[in-house]
Amino acid sequence: MSNQHIGFIGLGIMGQPMAGHLLDAGYPLTVYNRTPSKTEDLANQGASVADSPSQAACQADVVITIVSDTPDVAQVIEGPGGVLEGISSGAVLIDMSTVSPALEQRLDGLLRQKGASLIDAPVSGGDVGARNATLAIMAGGDQKAFERVRPILEVMGRSITYCGPSGSGQLTKLCNQILVSVNLLAVCEALSLASRNKLDPMTMIEAIQGGAAGSWQLANLGPKIASDDFDPGFMIDLMQKDLRLVAEAAGASNTPLPATSLVHQLFQSSQAWGEGREGTQALAKVLRRLASG
Amino acid sequence: MSNQHIGFIGLGIMGQPMAGHLLDAGYPLTVYNRTPSKTEDLANQGASVADSPSQAACQADVVITIVSDTPDVAQVIEGPGGVLEGISSGAVLIDMSTVSPALEQRLDGLLRQKGASLIDAPVSGGDVGARNATLAIMAGGDQKAFERVRPILEVMGRSITYCGPSGSGQLTKLCNQILVSVNLLAVCEALSLASRNKLDPMTMIEAIQGGAAGSWQLANLGPKIASDDFDPGFMIDLMQKDLRLVAEAAGASNTPLPATSLVHQLFQSSQAWGEGREGTQALAKVLRRLASG
Repeated sequence: MSNQHIGFIGLGIMGQPMAGHLLDAGYPLTVYNRTPSKTEDLANQGASVADSPSQAACQADVVITIVSDTPDVAQVIEGPGGVLEGISSGAVLIDMSTVSPALEQRLDGLLRQKGASLIDAPVSGGDVGARNATLAIMAGGDQKAFERVRPILEVMGRSITYCGPSGSGQLTKLCNQILVSVNLLAVCEALSLASRNKLDPMTMIEAIQGGAAGSWQLANLGPKIASDDFDPGFMIDLMQKDLRLVAEAAGASNTPLPATSLVHQLFQSSQAWGEGREGTQALAKVLRRLASG
Repeated sequence: MSNQHIGFIGLGIMGQPMAGHLLDAGYPLTVYNRTPSKTEDLANQGASVADSPSQAACQADVVITIVSDTPDVAQVIEGPGGVLEGISSGAVLIDMSTVSPALEQRLDGLLRQKGASLIDAPVSGGDVGARNATLAIMAGGDQKAFERVRPILEVMGRSITYCGPSGSGQLTKLCNQILVSVNLLAVCEALSLASRNKLDPMTMIEAIQGGAAGSWQLANLGPKIASDDFDPGFMIDLMQKDLRLVAEAAGASNTPLPATSLVHQLFQSSQAWGEGREGTQALAKVLRRLASG
């Protein structure tokens, strides 16, 4: 399996360690990054370096892209020198970026015309999950193509789920972001009521987190809010990008999402106050501003 | 310890099994219930039956009340023939109803005038928790009085937390209800986006529940919503009662709670459509109504 050649495009905070795991697992790897200096570490570990996405794709059995946003994905795949120009018939492109399901469905059509396949496979678990290879990976697309690349996904993540046809991985990721952000707003509101009534926040959290009120957000971000720790695990600016994708998918399917829309608007206050690069738990500051003049 | 005499007032779906556990643990028990027929089972097991809350309180070292709503608590404690008429100096009243923190603080003052103490100790865990003695109990009031009655609370619950001065148990319970209801709305919105995009709901839940999107509500009520099971674990009408207490406490402390307010309004649609006696997960039906004409 490990003599499948992999082209890897996008060596940011996520892509860099993910590509490293593939090298460690013995896959021949050709990497591309818009800022070339980020390829150096992997080149020193044995990766080849390409000058364009097309070049990274042309000898690959499997191409992986993980870039920041919808225009970046369109650029590295459809743009001049993009993956579509180089990818072979029979190859599989795995897009691990978080982008709109609609974009993936359109790209899926373009790849089929080349005889290739697209798997949309966004991740959750953040940079820690990328470094420790404990990501959750949510995949959509042709199921046979998914099964062919599953061993590669297993090198980078711990929980790999096939979710359905093209776009289903992205849709699952958007459901994840709805839950993450609305659960966080619940935590912020509970802590706001507590603190304004002089209830010790940690005692409150410990009293209730084992029951029906429990959540990952309460257990992990509640104590950070209680101690005014707003360092980023996941930045507000990135969450807002994802919530715009949620709004787009919700709009396209006529799905009213009142609480998700509310949290998206409240995060806009974080951005207005210059807090977009803080962790999502800085949403607590918005409620504090609402509550004291 | 178990020769402390307990007066127990309120033998509803919660109080009945809780009083039974105290009898089983060997505490001499005098019970009172507004509808006398509900005392029969406990009388057959050895409990004495009182004709009024006052009579249930007059020989008791510890009095426990667990009734439905704020007016009921006021009635059994302050009303004619109420606990205040009978309670002894040095006794402890434990109010396990869910009512407003402000009411508990006022009653605390009245009991102090009698030389008695009040512990507010609402519970979570529902009728299943009451039957299995696995309730979470959140207590407020004088800490020495709390320590004296802790062994009694341990007979009825599994997680007993002292939260602070009078009203702190109720406030903690209200924080619990904020988290429970807003987390549930997050689950309903994620499932709504999934189903309107033909994403299999159980696959989505399984793909994400182990990560940052995870919650008790997702794991326990998500599958019920996915299979159209709206039987009550906890009824919408009761949640609305609790959310009114949240709104009252939030108003008294000038604490804006936008998402909690939103879920309270959406549950009003459940009530408008005659779904108030269904489980809280029937909130999903409100989103379905919003999404299809």
